[in-house]
Amino acid sequence: MNRIKACRALLAKDHLDSFLVTNPVNIHYLLNRPTLFDSHFNGVLLITEQEAILLADFRYFESAKVAELDAEIRLIQKKPLFDIFFNLVAEKGLKKVGFESGHLRTAVFLKLRQRLGECFVPQFNLIELIRAIKDRSELEAMTKAAAIGDQIFQRLLTLLEPGMAEREIALEIDFMLRRAGAEKVSFEPIVASGPNSAIPHAQTGSRCLKSGDAVVLDFGCVYEGYCSDMTRTVVIGRADNKLKKIYNWVKAAQQLALDGLEAGMTGGAADALARDYFKLHRQAAKFGHSLGHGVGMDVHELPILAKTSTQKLQPGMVFTIEPGLYLSGFGGVRIEDMVVMESDGPNILTTAGKDLIEL
Amino acid sequence: MNRIKACRALLAKDHLDSFLVTNPVNIHYLLNRPTLFDSHFNGVLLITEQEAILLADFRYFESAKVAELDAEIRLIQKKPLFDIFFNLVAEKGLKKVGFESGHLRTAVFLKLRQRLGECFVPQFNLIELIRAIKDRSELEAMTKAAAIGDQIFQRLLTLLEPGMAEREIALEIDFMLRRAGAEKVSFEPIVASGPNSAIPHAQTGSRCLKSGDAVVLDFGCVYEGYCSDMTRTVVIGRADNKLKKIYNWVKAAQQLALDGLEAGMTGGAADALARDYFKLHRQAAKFGHSLGHGVGMDVHELPILAKTSTQKLQPGMVFTIEPGLYLSGFGGVRIEDMVVMESDGPNILTTAGKDLIEL
Repeated sequence: MNRIKACRALLAKDHLDSFLVTNPVNIHYLLNRPTLFDSHFNGVLLITEQEAILLADFRYFESAKVAELDAEIRLIQKKPLFDIFFNLVAEKGLKKVGFESGHLRTAVFLKLRQRLGECFVPQFNLIELIRAIKDRSELEAMTKAAAIGDQIFQRLLTLLEPGMAEREIALEIDFMLRRAGAEKVSFEPIVASGPNSAIPHAQTGSRCLKSGDAVVLDFGCVYEGYCSDMTRTVVIGRADNKLKKIYNWVKAAQQLALDGLEAGMTGGAADALARDYFKLHRQAAKFGHSLGHGVGMDVHELPILAKTSTQKLQPGMVFTIEPGLYLSGFGGVRIEDMVVMESDGPNILTTAGKDLIEL
Repeated sequence: MNRIKACRALLAKDHLDSFLVTNPVNIHYLLNRPTLFDSHFNGVLLITEQEAILLADFRYFESAKVAELDAEIRLIQKKPLFDIFFNLVAEKGLKKVGFESGHLRTAVFLKLRQRLGECFVPQFNLIELIRAIKDRSELEAMTKAAAIGDQIFQRLLTLLEPGMAEREIALEIDFMLRRAGAEKVSFEPIVASGPNSAIPHAQTGSRCLKSGDAVVLDFGCVYEGYCSDMTRTVVIGRADNKLKKIYNWVKAAQQLALDGLEAGMTGGAADALARDYFKLHRQAAKFGHSLGHGVGMDVHELPILAKTSTQKLQPGMVFTIEPGLYLSGFGGVRIEDMVVMESDGPNILTTAGKDLIEL
């Protein structure tokens, strides 16, 4: 189904005659051109019942023109963007314009609300909910992105050795991902070793790998505009018994979550699959984050697999399953796969093995 | 001067008793720890007359604790962040809380406004204005970031040759910057060749360099949390006369702007230095963007050097001077230096030569 049409159908439900899209990722999505503009793109897309109008400044107008988009393209010049938008609302006689309240900054909202009044209606996650269900071409791109990650993980195993700095390893991951065909990393690779591995979002730093370290390797890449995300934890030299025990708990919790996933269950119910196992072993306090998150054009998007999430996991959704246990001062373990929800259960896109690897 | 104190002084002027900082770059700045958290950090900093309180979730709490910050650190758990913030406002008896309207998303604003009412006051660019004036340690980091860029540009000249793809060159720039000590690129390098060089924010792509091409190379890196940004345009093989003419206009306009810069002049007056020269040669319509932008922890920040900018260029500000001319279908030229405004004129941080280079 045409994405702009899907958007219009939701607008009609909410009695809106138009929708202002400001999130550049959503603009790329609706135009079905995931890699058209760079990250500085600051134009907007106005969807009305009949038209789609893209406002772009001088820097992007030329690329937009040659891209043969399903949208009229207007150049932003002389006046500020939101003056032009205001005039457009008048020109088209729009009465009820939805906007992305999860994206638009308050300063711009306050200005537009002053001029448009109640005609300007906040909408939360409207496009994000459409984006959560992937179509075939999106799944193809993400399968490829995940495969690049897997391939690089295998190569990484041959490189890691005591003495290497975390930062050096992260740089190597980045280079290898792009040499293997990725457009870029989906986020800066996390390489957290020894006690740093107890920090779920550790800053990759100058610490060097030592024998006995757990090393959390969390990385992903972008292929044709779509992200991958995976984590493996490996051990340098021999794992001591405590580390082995933690590793096995995390591995078991991750497998339980994968085995228990069913289309139609809530994000909260999925989260409980791993969390209840940790509770059983009195480890739940060491699992401080949520089980997973959607992945797509953004590396963090809908759905959310967290304790309180009531969103249903539907066929076509792609998300991570990434339980972890973190012991302050000692170390941590996280294992993360990316899966596609299908009607008969999850299809796991990450293929790297999950048995404990001691290097 | 302590940055949090500088912030408090501005609050007092606006009769605010506190300020909610949501922009992670501003949080890093105020804590004087530019590289503490990664790009997913989503905590907030509350500045009151007496205290600074950082709210961080599980993923960042550990790093915040060990960092010995000049702030009390509280863990976000069980309740959503903004519920905790709301309770904190009550606990501290705050009556007038400023917030960053240029950063806070409308959806969060609407929720907080509902609970806090007129007690919750939009402030625009409050920290950004403090950030625009750099101190010595910031200037040192930026000087180093600029030097890494210059060094890599020289090396790049030895690599470029017909047949290389734009994307391959961009990748090489990225690798070289980081191998030379940068933490990362300050934005994805722009490599725009031949007709693509007529697009100021071209997507670096699969086009291969050909003899006669203008190649716009626009890149920068991050060192100790601070950005650099530079552009040079080189020619593969021989430049034809038309390209030479454009090159010389841009070079002359850039030099005129550098020579004419004075502390205290407005961003608009600075922009006119180059724009008036292009007008004289009837080229102004081909210079569609502004003359420059501030650089710091963000690669685009205050001040703005654009036609309508009334902001004064003050000693300690760091910004780019980057005129360009773009001829659709033919090609374009841009030359960009990063400068520090000093009381007796600009100090140019970019040292790469600007005579036409034919490779």
